[in-house]
Amino acid sequence: MKYCSTCGAPVILCIPSGDTRQRHICVNCGAIHYQNPKLVVGAIPVWEDKILLCRRAIEPRRRKWTLPAGFMENHETSAEAAIRETLEEACADVDLDEMFTFIDLPCIDQVHIFYRARLRDANFRPGDESLETALFSETDIPWDDIAFRSTTSTLRHYFEDRRTGHWRFHAIVQHAAAQ
Amino acid sequence: MKYCSTCGAPVILCIPSGDTRQRHICVNCGAIHYQNPKLVVGAIPVWEDKILLCRRAIEPRRRKWTLPAGFMENHETSAEAAIRETLEEACADVDLDEMFTFIDLPCIDQVHIFYRARLRDANFRPGDESLETALFSETDIPWDDIAFRSTTSTLRHYFEDRRTGHWRFHAIVQHAAAQ
Repeated sequence: MKYCSTCGAPVILCIPSGDTRQRHICVNCGAIHYQNPKLVVGAIPVWEDKILLCRRAIEPRRRKWTLPAGFMENHETSAEAAIRETLEEACADVDLDEMFTFIDLPCIDQVHIFYRARLRDANFRPGDESLETALFSETDIPWDDIAFRSTTSTLRHYFEDRRTGHWRFHAIVQHAAAQ
Repeated sequence: MKYCSTCGAPVILCIPSGDTRQRHICVNCGAIHYQNPKLVVGAIPVWEDKILLCRRAIEPRRRKWTLPAGFMENHETSAEAAIRETLEEACADVDLDEMFTFIDLPCIDQVHIFYRARLRDANFRPGDESLETALFSETDIPWDDIAFRSTTSTLRHYFEDRRTGHWRFHAIVQHAAAQ
């Protein structure tokens, strides 16, 4: 951020009076421009005992596999975001179950959330942001080619809870820079 | 948003190619400025059988009571945000327990999250954004003077779960415009 989105004048980085953190402040109108973490929301779409994954057509992590997920939009709920992203990335309709993982990623200023979900039918195909979509059973998951650590930990918790038969909500912190 | 934060030129509202939503796009450099929901994180600070509430010194809802909470910052976890907000608004130290409520508020483009928390001692006093801080037992909660509906529903779920002795995680959607 170099310019004020309110008046177009330059901004400087400094700590406002009464605050403790550096903010972008406009030298002309004084507007303070706060920056906050973003929510990325996705689904764990299940068909029989298999999980639907998408192979990414875009950077970052092009050609790697991921659960359908993306930035939550204004004016929608997190559940609506999970359903929308699954439709956009895998052209698949899901019914959501409960929120399953909440993952703090302070190193990239994001929070990732995944809902358990049931595919309504076995119709799916790659959306614009996917090269390929496919169902994987636990033994076939391409663990070495998963795009993001939040996807890996969500899948691992999913299979653990499925084994115990006891679905829990998992709040997780991932600190390392590598995602 | 009227000006591009990257180059200072005017922005226009239109739907980018391949997108489905209106975005602010720079007429000069073409930067697309996305706007996304913000996370507000707070705590339910407990001392014996009482809850610590803060009476707001600032708008919105000045003079109304609330749980300590505020916007999550970049580079922190949601748990760190809940601890920081409790310290800032009530000068109180807490140890956090589990995430308790996750509240979608699509009408104001926010998600509110509350953690159950234990006060380390009975030392608390109003921070800069509070007029007053006080402990309330369930029968004394000023229900008609609570600042935000997400606080009311978090407190109601808290007392319900305390009665049953079974602490659950509650994902809630609040649709109405009035908060």
